[in-house]
Amino acid sequence: MPVGTLANVKTITPSQLRETGAQMILSNTYHLHLQPGEAIVAGGGGLHKFMGWNGPMLTDSGGFQVFSLSEMRKISEEGVTFRSPHDGQIINLTPERSIEIQNTLGADVIMAFDECPPYPASRQEVETATERTYRWLERCIVAHQNSSEQALFGIVQGGVYLDLRSRAAEALAKLDLPGYAIGGVSVGEPPELMAQIVQVTAPLLPPEKPRYLMGVGTYREMAIAIASGIDLFDCVIPTRWARHGTAIVQGDRWNLKNAKFREDFTPLDETCPCYTCQNFSRAYISHLVRSQEILAYTLLSIHNITELIRFTQKIREAILSDRFIAEFGHWLSGGDEGAGEAGEAGEENN
Amino acid sequence: MPVGTLANVKTITPSQLRETGAQMILSNTYHLHLQPGEAIVAGGGGLHKFMGWNGPMLTDSGGFQVFSLSEMRKISEEGVTFRSPHDGQIINLTPERSIEIQNTLGADVIMAFDECPPYPASRQEVETATERTYRWLERCIVAHQNSSEQALFGIVQGGVYLDLRSRAAEALAKLDLPGYAIGGVSVGEPPELMAQIVQVTAPLLPPEKPRYLMGVGTYREMAIAIASGIDLFDCVIPTRWARHGTAIVQGDRWNLKNAKFREDFTPLDETCPCYTCQNFSRAYISHLVRSQEILAYTLLSIHNITELIRFTQKIREAILSDRFIAEFGHWLSGGDEGAGEAGEAGEENN
Repeated sequence: MPVGTLANVKTITPSQLRETGAQMILSNTYHLHLQPGEAIVAGGGGLHKFMGWNGPMLTDSGGFQVFSLSEMRKISEEGVTFRSPHDGQIINLTPERSIEIQNTLGADVIMAFDECPPYPASRQEVETATERTYRWLERCIVAHQNSSEQALFGIVQGGVYLDLRSRAAEALAKLDLPGYAIGGVSVGEPPELMAQIVQVTAPLLPPEKPRYLMGVGTYREMAIAIASGIDLFDCVIPTRWARHGTAIVQGDRWNLKNAKFREDFTPLDETCPCYTCQNFSRAYISHLVRSQEILAYTLLSIHNITELIRFTQKIREAILSDRFIAEFGHWLSGGDEGAGEAGEAGEENN
Repeated sequence: MPVGTLANVKTITPSQLRETGAQMILSNTYHLHLQPGEAIVAGGGGLHKFMGWNGPMLTDSGGFQVFSLSEMRKISEEGVTFRSPHDGQIINLTPERSIEIQNTLGADVIMAFDECPPYPASRQEVETATERTYRWLERCIVAHQNSSEQALFGIVQGGVYLDLRSRAAEALAKLDLPGYAIGGVSVGEPPELMAQIVQVTAPLLPPEKPRYLMGVGTYREMAIAIASGIDLFDCVIPTRWARHGTAIVQGDRWNLKNAKFREDFTPLDETCPCYTCQNFSRAYISHLVRSQEILAYTLLSIHNITELIRFTQKIREAILSDRFIAEFGHWLSGGDEGAGEAGEAGEENN
């Protein structure tokens, strides 16, 4: 799912997004509550109509953002109190309020309000947060007013403590929710730990339900997660890197400002069907990046999203023809995808 | 002609631009010489292929930009010497060099290298510049190496001195060029003076040739100029205003940050066929502008260009059905289109 934090996938229109092959997108309760406010989105006919996206859509609950972005945050069993970065106003976000906002926004999938501990955090801190996340999930289920139209997914927390992850996953699985997510990854932990978390947690979640790994990812992270049964991802990498003048090409990361692209008149990727690769050269995009032309970010976003979607499409085809390990096994062990990628894969913080 | 200074119309793709109804665009010798350099554009197959625009295209000669943008400029009969704002390098631009660059870029219409005096300027200064512009035009004609593929337009200067304008126009008309332009307007002179310049100058240029008013314009400026026989315009207003969060709606100028748009779920213009008006509300665009989302500038550029193109299309239809004065006469006399518009209509200075 490309990330559309503020009711748009940055720098591209819904029609350009559709052409990338993207089917489902993510938007954000925390950001939309602050601006423009869920009442305005509802007034515009709900999030699909407001932003012109007629495909599936998921809203995150705001849990991750409250913990990672807001200042003067106070947490209690009731919920979280924080100061709006927009106008300094004090805002309370509780499981009930998050679900109410998400019911008002109207996405197809809504997320339980969770407590996402930072990395590193002590076992005691993480255990407290994980247990509170479960109690908050129970309140979310009760608060949810639109379960025939909107699927509520629960979120497994547990930090890097695999036994806490297992316990949380098993408890959530019993609730027979329409889908499940693994949260609290891609928050700065080493890649090996993320892989372990996913490998331990995903198989404990019901295989017949969608399983979603939040805030991931890179090629390697996705390949490893898919091997463990993950179905859904969201990640800002394709659009954020685009705005830094960076293209993702067959798993590599290219800075288009590099001198070698100045006179390279081939497309970013000869095999890519995207609008950017069908119409423009590396030299042209390099020129736009050097000139700080906004169109560069649009063209790179189109390509990067297409590239990541194609990667998952190829994996799907390989799975269906029983060739996943043969074709993607090299992603599962060792290799070097580029230092720091996982750490940059966190959610769009706008 | 929407303005594509640096080989792109800011914030929109060629395919979005095509949908606005725009047929011909303008790009810029001065800017493209500095970045990426004409050799790279030629290496990419010429400007059309490099930027992915397969319609007609015009390049300005660089005269206006050298005079309005560059520092440490020295002018002589030979040409102009200035310091590159990119790397401080000393650059010489002469009529021959400007034409050589434009031959290399490969636009369908190229412009003579002219001296564009500022406003205000003394009669003596303007007379000197106008006469030099004529001598430079003669050198451009000699230097032009690709006249079967690229049409060279001459530029009438003369400042606000109507007799100088007349003399220059009559001299140029005798040269039987493929097209003619009126330059040195929209440089800060009062609107009434611009109207007088156009009304005196345009009729002296051959009516069977395209007549182009440079750096214009607003609804009123275009209506007045068309009444005097002008066929072509270029103006940054639709894209520049878009990047300021401003929509042009039926001749009015709307700041989408205005509180009244926050909960207005109608399109910018119910009668507009553009992608923006067909898919998004004023409230949504207002939200994007408030959030400083780049997509706002894309959506507003699409609408604003469509709006100005539609205005000229309606004028064309009115002329063909002999209803120009009946339908557009109100633009020709008095009225208030908004103070300062003409002054903001200057060329994109990036």
